[in-house]
Amino acid sequence: MIFHHPIQIEFNHCDPAGIVFFPRFYEMISSDCENFHAKVGGLTYAQMMAAQQGVPTVKIETDFHAPARLGEVLDFQVEVERLGRSSILFKVTAWEGGVNRFTARMTQAFVEGLKARSWPEEVRARIEAFMAA
Amino acid sequence: MIFHHPIQIEFNHCDPAGIVFFPRFYEMISSDCENFHAKVGGLTYAQMMAAQQGVPTVKIETDFHAPARLGEVLDFQVEVERLGRSSILFKVTAWEGGVNRFTARMTQAFVEGLKARSWPEEVRARIEAFMAA
Amino acid sequence: MIFHHPIQIEFNHCDPAGIVFFPRFYEMISSDCENFHAKVGGLTYAQMMAAQQGVPTVKIETDFHAPARLGEVLDFQVEVERLGRSSILFKVTAWEGGVNRFTARMTQAFVEGLKARSWPEEVRARIEAFMAA
Amino acid sequence: MIFHHPIQIEFNHCDPAGIVFFPRFYEMISSDCENFHAKVGGLTYAQMMAAQQGVPTVKIETDFHAPARLGEVLDFQVEVERLGRSSILFKVTAWEGGVNRFTARMTQAFVEGLKARSWPEEVRARIEAFMAA
Repeated sequence: MIFHHPIQIEFNHCDPAGIVFFPRFYEMISSDCENFHAKVGGLTYAQMMAAQQGVPTVKIETDFHAPARLGEVLDFQVEVERLGRSSILFKVTAWEGGVNRFTARMTQAFVEGLKARSWPEEVRARIEAFMAA
Repeated sequence: MIFHHPIQIEFNHCDPAGIVFFPRFYEMISSDCENFHAKVGGLTYAQMMAAQQGVPTVKIETDFHAPARLGEVLDFQVEVERLGRSSILFKVTAWEGGVNRFTARMTQAFVEGLKARSWPEEVRARIEAFMAA
Repeated sequence: MIFHHPIQIEFNHCDPAGIVFFPRFYEMISSDCENFHAKVGGLTYAQMMAAQQGVPTVKIETDFHAPARLGEVLDFQVEVERLGRSSILFKVTAWEGGVNRFTARMTQAFVEGLKARSWPEEVRARIEAFMAA
Repeated sequence: MIFHHPIQIEFNHCDPAGIVFFPRFYEMISSDCENFHAKVGGLTYAQMMAAQQGVPTVKIETDFHAPARLGEVLDFQVEVERLGRSSILFKVTAWEGGVNRFTARMTQAFVEGLKARSWPEEVRARIEAFMAA
């Protein structure tokens, strides 16, 4: 299944070349994953913070295919390629007008304090159901 | 009349104290005004760019009343306090749970090239109708 | 006395009009004040965090006089206009080629937990010495 | 040879967990490469903009090894792993206290208008000299 998260490209995202400055894409990917965890996994970042938990990024690979421009509304698409005991591998793409702008693969670790811990059972069950749907 | 523009407070907005880092509020205010111009004035920033036009900020005054926290959805409220020949004075506030987090007054100038120019007639008419409603 | 803090204008600061996007100026002002507190007051933000302290911004007024461009190195100048029991009023300007780009007046409150507290004696003494010099 | 570009970790870079928010690392990497092009290649981003040129990012792979904290000064180290006809592959790492925080490999394309073009001869010569040193 695919989690869709549309984001409108605004002035604050764009560089002197008039296109999205690539680090802003990572803020958008962070937002995509934050909304995925809240809406699919049922665990918000605020809940994680309150429990000394978090999902730091351990690895990202990104291929940029085409620029994104001011005023476009990109359909960010989040898929889960692998759910480990305490990790998750996302594939994120961003579409408008039938053209994908980038493909990112990003691994997060689920931690409590500074140590990896296994996903809570109900979170794992919800994400597995999403993956199977 | 009031233009409402809700923004969800996400991880990327927050500082080590767990609240919105104040410069992020200005990115949000920029977004509020950008959406106001597109939806109320009928003139997008992309259209302005294509015509060598823009709305640089010339003055802002902000009082911060209360912090905003991760996970809150703030109702940004944009009002127009004065519409000049080539300027606009916005009042922007941000509400959740009945509490306003800040009050900003921000003046933009409408320019073409680097020179002030008067608002296009249809843009002025739309903003005046908004102010009168 | 004036605290000088030069910042080079880079690609990440600039907008589609090729000039500094105004919210980035507030990140720079935040950096100016952070360096002022560390180097003049002798109190770093990391030390404040560790002691549940902070200096949230309560008010800012800014007049933007002229744009700043990619590649310029601005001389940010920080002055203290008033040091209260638990507050500080900064005047910040940013110069290059004899032209000031903006004038900001910003008030911070010194807090511990969520409550205002008086400046530590040695911090107050150092800032007063700076003001008198 | 290695190009060193120190960056101090400030409040504006850090997230609610008190460590650098990973998209800010990409702003820093962008700054590293911008300074590399100016100081090693002898071609500034302002000069590129004026000539309708640029160096868009086409690919990045990053492994995050350890968090970076408020107040640390990271020694960003930029190496060139491959210089193509119109591309460059950077390896960027970030060190403090003998610990590298991440390893990024990033490919930029040199473009004029929207088309790839070969590096100017003098720029190529300078970067090759850097690689050989």
